[in-house]
Amino acid sequence: MKVGILGATGYTGIELIRILSKHANAKITYLSSKHFESQLISEVYPGLSGFCDKILEGDDFKKAVAICDVIFSTLPHELTFEVGKMVIDAGKKLIDLGPAFRFDDFNFFKKWYGSNVEIEYDKYHKVYGLTELYREKVKNSQIVGNPGCYPTSVILALAPVLKNRVVVDKNIIIDSKSGVSGAGHEPKFSNLYSECNENTKPYKVAKHRHIPEIEQELSKIMEQDVKVVFTPHLVPMTRGILSTIYCNLESDITLEDVYDLYQEFYKNDYFIKILKPGKYPSTKSVAGSNFCQIGFEIDERTNTLIIISAIDNLMKGASGQAVQNMNLMFGLPENKGLDVIRIFP
Amino acid sequence: MKVGILGATGYTGIELIRILSKHANAKITYLSSKHFESQLISEVYPGLSGFCDKILEGDDFKKAVAICDVIFSTLPHELTFEVGKMVIDAGKKLIDLGPAFRFDDFNFFKKWYGSNVEIEYDKYHKVYGLTELYREKVKNSQIVGNPGCYPTSVILALAPVLKNRVVVDKNIIIDSKSGVSGAGHEPKFSNLYSECNENTKPYKVAKHRHIPEIEQELSKIMEQDVKVVFTPHLVPMTRGILSTIYCNLESDITLEDVYDLYQEFYKNDYFIKILKPGKYPSTKSVAGSNFCQIGFEIDERTNTLIIISAIDNLMKGASGQAVQNMNLMFGLPENKGLDVIRIFP
Amino acid sequence: MKVGILGATGYTGIELIRILSKHANAKITYLSSKHFESQLISEVYPGLSGFCDKILEGDDFKKAVAICDVIFSTLPHELTFEVGKMVIDAGKKLIDLGPAFRFDDFNFFKKWYGSNVEIEYDKYHKVYGLTELYREKVKNSQIVGNPGCYPTSVILALAPVLKNRVVVDKNIIIDSKSGVSGAGHEPKFSNLYSECNENTKPYKVAKHRHIPEIEQELSKIMEQDVKVVFTPHLVPMTRGILSTIYCNLESDITLEDVYDLYQEFYKNDYFIKILKPGKYPSTKSVAGSNFCQIGFEIDERTNTLIIISAIDNLMKGASGQAVQNMNLMFGLPENKGLDVIRIFP
Amino acid sequence: MKVGILGATGYTGIELIRILSKHANAKITYLSSKHFESQLISEVYPGLSGFCDKILEGDDFKKAVAICDVIFSTLPHELTFEVGKMVIDAGKKLIDLGPAFRFDDFNFFKKWYGSNVEIEYDKYHKVYGLTELYREKVKNSQIVGNPGCYPTSVILALAPVLKNRVVVDKNIIIDSKSGVSGAGHEPKFSNLYSECNENTKPYKVAKHRHIPEIEQELSKIMEQDVKVVFTPHLVPMTRGILSTIYCNLESDITLEDVYDLYQEFYKNDYFIKILKPGKYPSTKSVAGSNFCQIGFEIDERTNTLIIISAIDNLMKGASGQAVQNMNLMFGLPENKGLDVIRIFP
Repeated sequence: MKVGILGATGYTGIELIRILSKHANAKITYLSSKHFESQLISEVYPGLSGFCDKILEGDDFKKAVAICDVIFSTLPHELTFEVGKMVIDAGKKLIDLGPAFRFDDFNFFKKWYGSNVEIEYDKYHKVYGLTELYREKVKNSQIVGNPGCYPTSVILALAPVLKNRVVVDKNIIIDSKSGVSGAGHEPKFSNLYSECNENTKPYKVAKHRHIPEIEQELSKIMEQDVKVVFTPHLVPMTRGILSTIYCNLESDITLEDVYDLYQEFYKNDYFIKILKPGKYPSTKSVAGSNFCQIGFEIDERTNTLIIISAIDNLMKGASGQAVQNMNLMFGLPENKGLDVIRIFP
Repeated sequence: MKVGILGATGYTGIELIRILSKHANAKITYLSSKHFESQLISEVYPGLSGFCDKILEGDDFKKAVAICDVIFSTLPHELTFEVGKMVIDAGKKLIDLGPAFRFDDFNFFKKWYGSNVEIEYDKYHKVYGLTELYREKVKNSQIVGNPGCYPTSVILALAPVLKNRVVVDKNIIIDSKSGVSGAGHEPKFSNLYSECNENTKPYKVAKHRHIPEIEQELSKIMEQDVKVVFTPHLVPMTRGILSTIYCNLESDITLEDVYDLYQEFYKNDYFIKILKPGKYPSTKSVAGSNFCQIGFEIDERTNTLIIISAIDNLMKGASGQAVQNMNLMFGLPENKGLDVIRIFP
Repeated sequence: MKVGILGATGYTGIELIRILSKHANAKITYLSSKHFESQLISEVYPGLSGFCDKILEGDDFKKAVAICDVIFSTLPHELTFEVGKMVIDAGKKLIDLGPAFRFDDFNFFKKWYGSNVEIEYDKYHKVYGLTELYREKVKNSQIVGNPGCYPTSVILALAPVLKNRVVVDKNIIIDSKSGVSGAGHEPKFSNLYSECNENTKPYKVAKHRHIPEIEQELSKIMEQDVKVVFTPHLVPMTRGILSTIYCNLESDITLEDVYDLYQEFYKNDYFIKILKPGKYPSTKSVAGSNFCQIGFEIDERTNTLIIISAIDNLMKGASGQAVQNMNLMFGLPENKGLDVIRIFP
Repeated sequence: MKVGILGATGYTGIELIRILSKHANAKITYLSSKHFESQLISEVYPGLSGFCDKILEGDDFKKAVAICDVIFSTLPHELTFEVGKMVIDAGKKLIDLGPAFRFDDFNFFKKWYGSNVEIEYDKYHKVYGLTELYREKVKNSQIVGNPGCYPTSVILALAPVLKNRVVVDKNIIIDSKSGVSGAGHEPKFSNLYSECNENTKPYKVAKHRHIPEIEQELSKIMEQDVKVVFTPHLVPMTRGILSTIYCNLESDITLEDVYDLYQEFYKNDYFIKILKPGKYPSTKSVAGSNFCQIGFEIDERTNTLIIISAIDNLMKGASGQAVQNMNLMFGLPENKGLDVIRIFP
């Protein structure tokens, strides 16, 4: 498989390169970068030297689509829509790490992203790429809208109990903590080391653009309209998302029952690790890997189920899941090139 | 004022020394340490050299009470009860940074702390030392049960809306994030640098011993039984607590109204900083200071009020508030020795 | 004293505000900022609210000089030279935190800083503001060239042994480690959290612009031409500089003798802390304070003296020392407003 | 190959498990742990679940040697000597990550490590396992004394210029900065998060036990007695060592010549990355990988060569190099199971 990465020098781009350089079936064929055009990727990131020494090209997306079998895009949505059209026309495949193809309803996308783009959204042959929920559709789609990092950590954590109606549809509170790499590679005041170190802070409270994505998917799982409260926080670490989710229990259920329910729900999912009662996820337990850890606790005093999930935001939350989807789209084992153990300590 | 600190070499102990060494009205007269007995405090912590060079004594608490006007204790509760009795008998004052004197109902304490101690709890002339709520009582008490770090951040954030019944008493969710100094000075695996760095993890989910303290106080404020869900997390920083609190709104209210309500509630409280709508607290904005920042957001989609508070766990969450209480007990201005600006960056 | 700060929103600027807001003899009268002009400083840095709520003005330096008794400048050197002239003409005082006034020989400055400015450098009534070495001159100067952060940590560490010719003038190796705040407040790729965290890296090896400043002063101390090797490194922390310095011993000397020599040399210097043999400095022991810790070891196997010094780069390495100089220039006790204990942990 | 790891739960032990669990030719057959005996390794470290779920056994080293082809030991040297004898007798192989087998002269070992052990040191068929220098001997040895983390970073950096006598043998200054994982997994005050975070500090100045190992090897390379000055520092990060090394140049040589010399010296060494003039190593560029980056600068003003090397202390500095040696001992490609790209960011 010849792969192209459009927008290769952001954190998700270089994570794709890290994974795909060692993927037995992939050959990195095209890399683009607006900021570092004409430089070697291994000059920009010396740690890639010997593994990937390609030139970063500019924005000749047509060429990229022509010479590659699959395109990964980290571009702004306006450009991704263009690339999407080229891919459809050329019978190639596209995995988009941005929001462009994550939605069922285009107006929903336009409202939350403040976009005026006019396209025939339904003509794109696409799927929401949360692999564990849409595995079969991913295999047969041309375009994958790869999920956001927060939605991945949240939807995987909630799917089993919503599907089985163990919890009620009201008062679902999601409190997520992310490492700073999730804020991207842009040089902004708020991303500076001295601003982030020794600092925990919420941002975009109840306004984050991952909310519509979360609600779209939870509503489909529960087959009714679900609304959530979502607060993202930045904590002083580079990688990792920990989501702590609070739901009202519908009925009496033990912690062991909940454990069994999750085990059953994810019994065929290699990358989902359900923790036994008494153990909780931590971001360090999944760092550098594509795994998602899920644990829980029942607060009997308030009849609340507390679900906790941990992922590496650049792996299962972005580039790892993108490659997981690529594997499916090309008939490969889902964990090909991704079967690595977390880094610890 | 002659002050003694029993258990002076833990993080709250040396923070007391840092504050009191520069307090115009206090004279550090007795320091005890089980682990470092007979050493100079400035040998154990060289940064104190020139500011406090006293010898660390052993456990002669009787002597401490005899020669001091006020005792700060960071001892285990069994020992603190003994010291409390000595203080009452001698007509001195005690500020306890542990849980021993925080409760109205001794059985409640015994249940949550698994204690078999038998004492006449009601004979201690004590008050729960959350200064902003109990200022007048603190002035006239012999013993202050200084609040826990999490409860300080939570009760201050919730008091105005519970008192004014702006929110309902159900579904109060508290998600707190603490720096690692909150886990204390003990050498344990879980506190090692390499275990905590790049790691965000929950602990004691729905089981933390600060829950009874929070519920006792919220129930008194609301004049009815209040239960909360509380999840503490460790995040990779040394100082700071950020609590994100979710409540269902009782009725229609604007963000501006909420802001006005908090401003009014805390209008005479020097150390409480209410942030304007659109601004959120961060731990770095209060680091090294005794301030508590409070901000909020309304999620209209779900009719949820989200309250966020930030404190320095060793200052307003422990030693700073202890000195704030000491000032009141001795008729001094509340912010004496505490009026310092946060360290930034 | 009315004080003005030109360039008030960088890290050294807000550190000056932090110190001067609580300085009994200073009144912050003028603040300028190119980036945040017309905003309240307490809007840009909410932690200053209640302590300093002044409007940030633009570049009306003439007004600043007219209404203030002393100006602190963090401006580029071209602008600082202009301000310097205004200050001389108006009979006011200037403390410059940049390199403009640190040099004896203007050509030396121009060469290392690649500057073409033409001014009558000798007409400025100035002094190199390393307080411990130039205390008397500082008292009587109109302009202070406040030392760089690295030079402060290095010159203080070397002065006693160079003055006493305990070490030879060759092979002086300086290996310095700095926190990231030393790289300033500019949003650059290299200062991003995700680039700096978990990363130790050298930069400007043997080329850093603090070299001429170090060599100028060491040469004056030793009364002969001294050259040094200097390598700065960035380590993942916000504040602090640790300099490890290696010199060949001239003759036999014991560690105790070295200790006595330093004690004697700095016997009247409040902010210098000489550590006993066997103890070494650490950045955390001086964080947030104006102290400089100095310790040493003799490697008898190689006849090498290893000197280690630690400062807070924003305090003794910049704004703290600037206020120390201001105190002297206005006849105040040197430690006025600066007598604070380090923050720990 | 059946492998056993004695002392499997320290940081180098679990790093071995991380590598060997994915090594196509290795089968983890025996794990021992004093502290966690009888527990599953995947209970102690949940991130290993699914990759390695073996029971941790006690100290039946005889059994370990009997059922394994190769033993990795992280035990204290007294125990390692016993295991070494068993291995020799049984015709098996041993890779020791401690100091026991790193020395040519047993008295030298005993002096620096304060040991009274009496053994026939010469009867052990052993080699110092710095792979790049002793590749052929490693292939044919039964016992490998795997190098210390600091010595690996230092000897690799100095070998080319000492061998070629580009630098003089005097005044070799080594200033190393290590992440905290190098201090091990023991719960000690000095390793606590709150003590290490925001702290850079030297330790064991001119006294570290890695000095004899460094000097033994440098002396052999240069064929004369070489002494060095060595100062290790702890910096606030988990992984990584950066060594900055200062030498006096013997004669005129350009930076390009130095670059060519290193390229030539290491032309057959997969894991050594020589950086072009103007680029410097950083710990983040090698994190999680087995690579060693080496860069340099010439300070013409002082005729000094500054060499900088970076490794991951747990990989090339310990467990990675141990597996590199294992590969050689069993006729496998040197980079088998180790050919991974650094984690970034």
